[in-house]
Amino acid sequence: MAETQQSNTYKGTAVVPGIAYAKAVWITPRPELPTSGPVTAEESRPAEFERFVAAADTVAERLEARGKSAHGAASEVLTATAGLVRDRGWRKTVRKNINSGHPAEYAVVAATTKFISMFEAAGGVMAERTTDLRDIRDRVIAELRGEAEPGLPAVDEPVVLFADDLSPADTAALDTNLFIALVTELGGPTSHTAIIARQLNVPCIVAVGAGATEVTAGTPVMVDGSLGTIVTHPDEAEATAAVASWEEMARRVAEWRGPAQTADGHRVQLLANVQDGKAARTAAATQAEGIGLFRTELCFLTATEEPTVEAQADVYCKVFEAFPESKVVVRSLDAGSDKPVAFASLADEMNPALGVRGLRIARGNEGLLHRQLDAIALAAEKSGRGDHAPTWVMAPMVATAREAKWFSGLCKERGLVAGAMIEVPAAALMADKIMPHLDFVSIGTNDLTQYTMAADRLSPQLAYLTDPWQPAVLRLIEHTCQIGAKTNTAVGVCGEAAADPLLACVLTGLGVNSLSAASTAIAGVGAKLSQVTFDDCRQAALAAIDAAGARAAKEAVRALLADA
Amino acid sequence: MAETQQSNTYKGTAVVPGIAYAKAVWITPRPELPTSGPVTAEESRPAEFERFVAAADTVAERLEARGKSAHGAASEVLTATAGLVRDRGWRKTVRKNINSGHPAEYAVVAATTKFISMFEAAGGVMAERTTDLRDIRDRVIAELRGEAEPGLPAVDEPVVLFADDLSPADTAALDTNLFIALVTELGGPTSHTAIIARQLNVPCIVAVGAGATEVTAGTPVMVDGSLGTIVTHPDEAEATAAVASWEEMARRVAEWRGPAQTADGHRVQLLANVQDGKAARTAAATQAEGIGLFRTELCFLTATEEPTVEAQADVYCKVFEAFPESKVVVRSLDAGSDKPVAFASLADEMNPALGVRGLRIARGNEGLLHRQLDAIALAAEKSGRGDHAPTWVMAPMVATAREAKWFSGLCKERGLVAGAMIEVPAAALMADKIMPHLDFVSIGTNDLTQYTMAADRLSPQLAYLTDPWQPAVLRLIEHTCQIGAKTNTAVGVCGEAAADPLLACVLTGLGVNSLSAASTAIAGVGAKLSQVTFDDCRQAALAAIDAAGARAAKEAVRALLADA
Repeated sequence: MAETQQSNTYKGTAVVPGIAYAKAVWITPRPELPTSGPVTAEESRPAEFERFVAAADTVAERLEARGKSAHGAASEVLTATAGLVRDRGWRKTVRKNINSGHPAEYAVVAATTKFISMFEAAGGVMAERTTDLRDIRDRVIAELRGEAEPGLPAVDEPVVLFADDLSPADTAALDTNLFIALVTELGGPTSHTAIIARQLNVPCIVAVGAGATEVTAGTPVMVDGSLGTIVTHPDEAEATAAVASWEEMARRVAEWRGPAQTADGHRVQLLANVQDGKAARTAAATQAEGIGLFRTELCFLTATEEPTVEAQADVYCKVFEAFPESKVVVRSLDAGSDKPVAFASLADEMNPALGVRGLRIARGNEGLLHRQLDAIALAAEKSGRGDHAPTWVMAPMVATAREAKWFSGLCKERGLVAGAMIEVPAAALMADKIMPHLDFVSIGTNDLTQYTMAADRLSPQLAYLTDPWQPAVLRLIEHTCQIGAKTNTAVGVCGEAAADPLLACVLTGLGVNSLSAASTAIAGVGAKLSQVTFDDCRQAALAAIDAAGARAAKEAVRALLADA
Repeated sequence: MAETQQSNTYKGTAVVPGIAYAKAVWITPRPELPTSGPVTAEESRPAEFERFVAAADTVAERLEARGKSAHGAASEVLTATAGLVRDRGWRKTVRKNINSGHPAEYAVVAATTKFISMFEAAGGVMAERTTDLRDIRDRVIAELRGEAEPGLPAVDEPVVLFADDLSPADTAALDTNLFIALVTELGGPTSHTAIIARQLNVPCIVAVGAGATEVTAGTPVMVDGSLGTIVTHPDEAEATAAVASWEEMARRVAEWRGPAQTADGHRVQLLANVQDGKAARTAAATQAEGIGLFRTELCFLTATEEPTVEAQADVYCKVFEAFPESKVVVRSLDAGSDKPVAFASLADEMNPALGVRGLRIARGNEGLLHRQLDAIALAAEKSGRGDHAPTWVMAPMVATAREAKWFSGLCKERGLVAGAMIEVPAAALMADKIMPHLDFVSIGTNDLTQYTMAADRLSPQLAYLTDPWQPAVLRLIEHTCQIGAKTNTAVGVCGEAAADPLLACVLTGLGVNSLSAASTAIAGVGAKLSQVTFDDCRQAALAAIDAAGARAAKEAVRALLADA
């Protein structure tokens, strides 16, 4: 009886596919911060400072040791963080606080708060380091209290990491050789955890719910990031076989070379989503045939004043340079909702996701859009782009034919190829009236799902609705593709849906001409497409749109394409 | 040259149809409130109090005089408001404040703030009177300053009232014999102004924009509440003829008797939207054949604890009693978004309209829904309802077939007829999977438009998108009707769209079986339907769904149905 353990299955939202089999570990929660504390007697203060120094040194040494065993960026992050714990200015401020009578724990909090303000005032790269300041504060406080070090536990064999949710600080140094899968209680398919997991390409399941807490540290688990299942105490032989079969698939993915096509030669253009020159260079190292979504927000979200046309053009040129001979699709500023722009004076709205965002901002500030289009045209010219490397521009949040016509006119005046995102349900429903004004459209499945299901894509409680497998969303995509074929308008998809190999087959079957996804997802999609015929895709598409719900759609398609 | 004045046309969102021709007047803005002020010397304080008494008396007399010349509810409201200005307790508090050195203006503000807190603490009817307290405060302060009385100007002939926006205080005493049309710069089709205008059935145009301010007081204007146009200095003969033709139409509306059908005998059920027994009795006095939407929120929104099943049943019985022999459609609790429920502990959400609202609340609190359905079944039984007076129940915010099936099961267990609102785009798109679980559906055009256009229905800047004439929305309605016909499921409409006679013809042409609207709108819709054939409706529907935008749809239908 002691030998056979009860096996349970937990289910969450599948975010990154892959199969892992290892023991579970839990992230250690961050400590409660002290608000103040009893005054330390004058004679005890030197000892109190010594206590702080010892704790800080221990934390620094631990980070340095880890920095040595880690690689690349993770190593740099850990070493830099250790440097902060050794920072003289910070330690001096802690000493001053202790000397004015505060206990070491509160002295650390107060000193860190001061440094955070200073870093924030300095702005730029300094401001970005405040997360690290909070991190060392928490580590030193835990050490002072003799509590376990918060954040990632120290492990020496591969494990599955369980957490309520992951913060950027927790994941900066995540070594995917040790943390081979992620499982979180909370979050949704577009949460921070999901984004990080996709970047790291580590199997991930989110929104498992409180059930996840039943899985105690040390329990052997098999995580299936495609099915969204966590099986505790699985049969060892079966689990090992499942991992091997997944690895075989991963090998095929690693060996896959583009351009993408189905087994019977139906071409699908595979493109990358990027936000800056660096990401574009990463994309250029993959099999991506170009850029399907260049999010220009970064240029605006971090600026306090509108960048000049020349400054914008310089940023755009960096992306163009990574793909000098290929198609690049630039999306005009998509501010508003959860993306504030300092100089566009957006109103405080009750429902920002249903508010003045995307192209709607340009209605009240047309010059902003004119100048951005000028900058895109200037960058295209400077980079020597032309028919061999077309520059496509699309507007976010188009809802009506009138908006499409207006935007298209502005693009044509500047010799740019004009398109629109299809992310408002009305745009899909009115595709027959919208497309005649445009050269192409690109379906943004994240927002299209949010509005079609009337469910906030960031709400963890509504993750069961905001699933790109929802047949309602697939039906809108099918309709868009039908009108695209009729009007000879290219139809792409650039939401998270394009990153899911199975869903990519469905989208191909629905008639989508190009798929744009995170660079890490491209090979997986390409490899999957190479194993199916266009007719397989068409059958999968029909099954998905005829399913009663998202789960049924996914299961039907998995059954159809399982052998492939 | 002095004789012929330049005629201009301004355009806004048409809210209540009707044609008026009269001079423009502007509402006087509310005064800026003083925050405090210099201390009054002790010897001047008695004179300062006298100054207050004189101002307050003037305000009271003016209100009393108006109360005498007004009729019905308006007269009562004015007299009651005058009573507040004469209230001894309030005057005593003002005196106390003056005696402690405050100038009269600030003394009035402070005294009123105190009374508002007291009224709010008392709750119930008292709490509802705080708006009146603010109103008298503003009037007395304006009088003290020798400024024009805020709010409605005193007029002695019919006028068109212009305002930036109207508040409940402004409109309580609105005499529609004098204020024969409303025009506002701001607001949307579901703003307070629009709701009041519909209740009063006075021609109304909102969201005209800053252009409205160009129309100065005294300018003769013709307002067309169907077209949404304001023409300054119109040709007098033409304007008079337009008013006469409108009045002829109004006469036909007044004479119209149900049940509703087209000129060639195609039946459409006309029902009323109500929120309590009082509204149901008002509806029973119209030609409404029953209740198409009983909003049960009122029972919950004002309660601090969940009402018992018996208490709920008592409220529902009051509505059933008004229509003892007719169909009543009860909507289960639609809380969340802008409708908070004290005891349901709703989370603070980034986008409440896309959050846990409507049926989604029942997922986390299933007992709340069970008890409400028990109460509806109990009320139906107590009221002796049966097949001759069916009790239909529908859930708000259904998005998937799974939700429809679950809700339907709960209704069937209690012998209730089960339905769902179609207000999430996915519900319309998946009608073929949802309807087999249900006996009927009712399309909520307000929310359906909000989500289909991805535009907050309460946002004044986005009123150009949140128009029920949007062809994208009409296409979803058409699809829903087609599936309804195929699956033999009744399809109703219960949003604002059903209140617009022209749009009601379109909805009938799309295949809608019943229309539910505010009681005041029923006769207008019925009269219009009696003047058109079903084929006219069908042609209008085809023209509307083939239009490129909302304005084009409306213009096409108006041209087709103008003669009728």
